[in-house]
Formats: sequence, C-alpha cells, structure tokens
Amino acid sequence: MIDRSSLQTGQQVRRACRRGELTEQTAGLAPGLAQANLVILPDELAFDFLLFCRQNPKPCPLLEVIEAGSPIPKTVAAEADLRTDLPRYRVWENGELVDEPTDIRDRWRDNFVSFLIGCSFTFEAALLRAGVPIRHLETNVTVPMFRTNIPCSPAGIFQGPMVVSMRPLKSSDAIRAVQITSRYPAVHGAPVHLGLPAQIGIADLARPDFGETVEVHDDELPVFWACGVTPQAVVMAVKPPLVITHSPGCMFVTDVADETLAVG
Amino acid sequence: MIDRSSLQTGQQVRRACRRGELTEQTAGLAPGLAQANLVILPDELAFDFLLFCRQNPKPCPLLEVIEAGSPIPKTVAAEADLRTDLPRYRVWENGELVDEPTDIRDRWRDNFVSFLIGCSFTFEAALLRAGVPIRHLETNVTVPMFRTNIPCSPAGIFQGPMVVSMRPLKSSDAIRAVQITSRYPAVHGAPVHLGLPAQIGIADLARPDFGETVEVHDDELPVFWACGVTPQAVVMAVKPPLVITHSPGCMFVTDVADETLAVG
Repeated sequence: MIDRSSLQTGQQVRRACRRGELTEQTAGLAPGLAQANLVILPDELAFDFLLFCRQNPKPCPLLEVIEAGSPIPKTVAAEADLRTDLPRYRVWENGELVDEPTDIRDRWRDNFVSFLIGCSFTFEAALLRAGVPIRHLETNVTVPMFRTNIPCSPAGIFQGPMVVSMRPLKSSDAIRAVQITSRYPAVHGAPVHLGLPAQIGIADLARPDFGETVEVHDDELPVFWACGVTPQAVVMAVKPPLVITHSPGCMFVTDVADETLAVG
Repeated sequence: MIDRSSLQTGQQVRRACRRGELTEQTAGLAPGLAQANLVILPDELAFDFLLFCRQNPKPCPLLEVIEAGSPIPKTVAAEADLRTDLPRYRVWENGELVDEPTDIRDRWRDNFVSFLIGCSFTFEAALLRAGVPIRHLETNVTVPMFRTNIPCSPAGIFQGPMVVSMRPLKSSDAIRAVQITSRYPAVHGAPVHLGLPAQIGIADLARPDFGETVEVHDDELPVFWACGVTPQAVVMAVKPPLVITHSPGCMFVTDVADETLAVG
C-alpha cells in the first residue's frame, strides 16, 4: 500500500496512478488542488456532449476538453496522460459497466475526446476552511445523490434530469454555504435547491439514488448542489457503444489550485 | 396631496417634507436612492449606542452618524436637515410614544446625536431587478417582523433580541436572494436565517410582532433578514427620557445611489 501522505502534488498522485501504486479513491490527496471528473467519448458524440455541458454549467462545469487523438491535457496538468493517471476507470459498452481497469491504454482510440469536469471536492474544502461541517466527510461515507425532476437543457441526443448531491446544514451554515459556493462556478457553484426536497422530486432523503445515506437533523436543512454524476447518467442513458469514465471517487488530480477557480 | 411621481431625487423628497407637503411613507420615492432609518439620542447614550451598532452590523448598519449639536448630515445628503426633512417622526419619552410630528425643530436639543441606519428598501430594489418577487410589496402591506431568540451583542446599557423581517421565497429565489443581499452589507446584508423559524424562536409565522401578515405558500421557505427595527426596540427597552425616531415607513431619503452600497 502506498503512503497516501506522500501524495502532496498533482504530479505525485498521477505518477503513483501510472505506476499502478494508487488504485483507490483520491479524496484528501494533493490538498488544495482541484480534482476532476472524466468522461471520454467517441468524436461523433463530442459536439452534442460539449453543447450539453455548455448549456448545463451547474452539473457540467468544464475544466478542460481534450480534442480527439490526444490523451494529454494542455492546461490543467503538466506531463499528464489521461489513459494512465487516474487510479481506476469504468468502461461502459452499450450503457453497461463491463470493466473497471486501472489503465486504459489498450482501449484508447484515436477518435476519443476527453472531458474534464469540475468536482465538488474543491468547494467542500472551501466550506471546511470556513468552519461549515460536512456530514458525509465526518461519517466517512460517499455523499448522497438523488435524481431530481429538474430537467437539464437538452443538446442533441443528450437529455435527462439533473442529479444533485445533498449536504445537511444548519440554516446559518446553509446561508454561508450559498455565499461560499457561489464563488466556485467551475465546481458546480451555488446550490440549486434547499429545504424542500419534494419540490425537486425527491420523495425520501434516506434513500439516495447514488452514494450513501446521511442523517438530516431536525435543526438542519437539506442543501442540494448540481452533481457531476449528471453528465455520466445522461451519457449512459444514450447507451453509446463505448464510453470511459473515472471510477467513482477515483478522480483526475490536476495542478490547478482550488483558489484559482474562485471568483470574487 | 402632492404628486408622488414628482419626487424623483433625494432633494425633491426632502424639500417636500420640509414644506409639509409630504407626511406619508416614502416607499417608492426617489427610485435608485438609499433611504435610512433615523435614531436621535442624547449624547450620554451615544457611545453605548454607537458601540451597539458596531457590534451588531446586520441589524444596525450605520450609513452616517451626525455628532452632537448638528442636525445636518455631512456625507449621505446635501443641504439636508434631519429636523424637517423626514415626512413624520416619533417622539418617545421614557419609552412611550408621545407624539408623531412632521417637524422636530421645537424639540431639538444641542446634545442630540443622530444615527442614520441602512434600510431594506435598497436590497428589495435589487431583488426586484433580479426578478425575485416580494410578497408584502405585491399585497401592499408592511413587511412582517418578528422578535427572535438571537441575542444581539450587548454594548453598555443596550441589549436585547434581534428583530427580523420575513419574506417568503421559493427555494431557487431564496438562493438568489442570499447571493444578491450578500452584496449589500450596508443594508442588512445576507439573511440571518431561512427555513426553520422555530430554530430562531418564531412560533407562528401568521402572527408577526410588527408589520402585517403575509402568506407563506407550501412551495416557499420563510427567509429572515436582520431588521432596522432592532435598534429602535433595543433603545426603547431602556426607556430613555427622550428619543426621536422616524415614523415607520417615513424614512430619510439620501442622495446615495443604492448601487454605491453594493460590494463585489
């Protein structure tokens, strides 16, 4: 097992993935640096998906798009290779999960376009710095996520409901959380809803569609952010012949400081 | 009756008050300019009250303090006189309302210190510009206000609970309202609470302590802002021999553009 505390920079994390030494989730690694969701699509779907992201910036905030033929990001990381530098991938054929490899060099095709999408780790770090507690981190579970009745703006073949993540917060912390996460539009930005889950089609907070359950106390409001699972769910619904994504929690660690993604 | 549409500038409103032609509330007059709450105290209470305002900036955001001996603001309005330029005043003796004159020249004393405190009209205008509806304006009633269990930070003889105003909003509008009003710390700033009135000691939203009742729909959250009634309530609780305030809704209209009070 690799010593996770030795992975302080983006390059250290990426090299450990490349050497096969890191095959687990990346939360907490390279603190202060932004991590990213990954979606790799064949180029015939790329325009529709790019348009979908542009039209749905809250669930799909793009950090970088890497054009067909190259697995090498140009802006968010140096000397990186998207085929090797994540701990683990998911390979989807016709909408079904067929493999979870730690390397996709043998599956790479020259017509693949890669999308790096902002991840909530960045705004969670900002919330923690401001003293706003985050229940799923305290209880060491995956954030609960829910399909909503909020439709994404459709683009080409892509359409579907927004998926949201939920964090229970006291009212004063919810107000702070709106202020803080508004500064991070590149990582989902301000909440999309708070307080009234039935209004967005969520019947039972104890039964998330993805992730794990966290308790909502009587003195707390459920606060909902657009979630990076949305683009994956939308892509999978179309059942393309081949799509590759990161494995949940096994993100691409960039060289971009969280704070450079803040506005204001 | 004066034609209210003729009152477009701060000076036009103040002159109409001075001539005795405007004796009613100022909402909607001189659009785009900030209006202010007024508290006039004898100088022996002035330090404690100034400290109270400094320590409680959300309910008591000071726009200007005018030192003893002068009723003439130096910064927020030109050629103004606080003794004549409001439509109507309230005179309080030993904590009891004894008069509601339209002019306080005959009651002015050389040891009076005047405090001009930001008013929610400024942030309401910003909310309306952003398309956030405000129920009490739609139904043409006074905003409902409630005593809370949130203690103000005490200063000298002044202490007491924060008074809040309540505006019911759909969740998405509540999130926008946090963002928008956060830009206006000089006029109460971000909400102090939303969603869970019992948490701040409010038992029944249908029974405000001040102002009038507005309906909260099933798809709405009650959103609470610190209220300029707080300093008045705190001062009255001390029952000073003589205090003068504006009459509710009859504000001092400044020359300060609402937008110059915005940050960010």
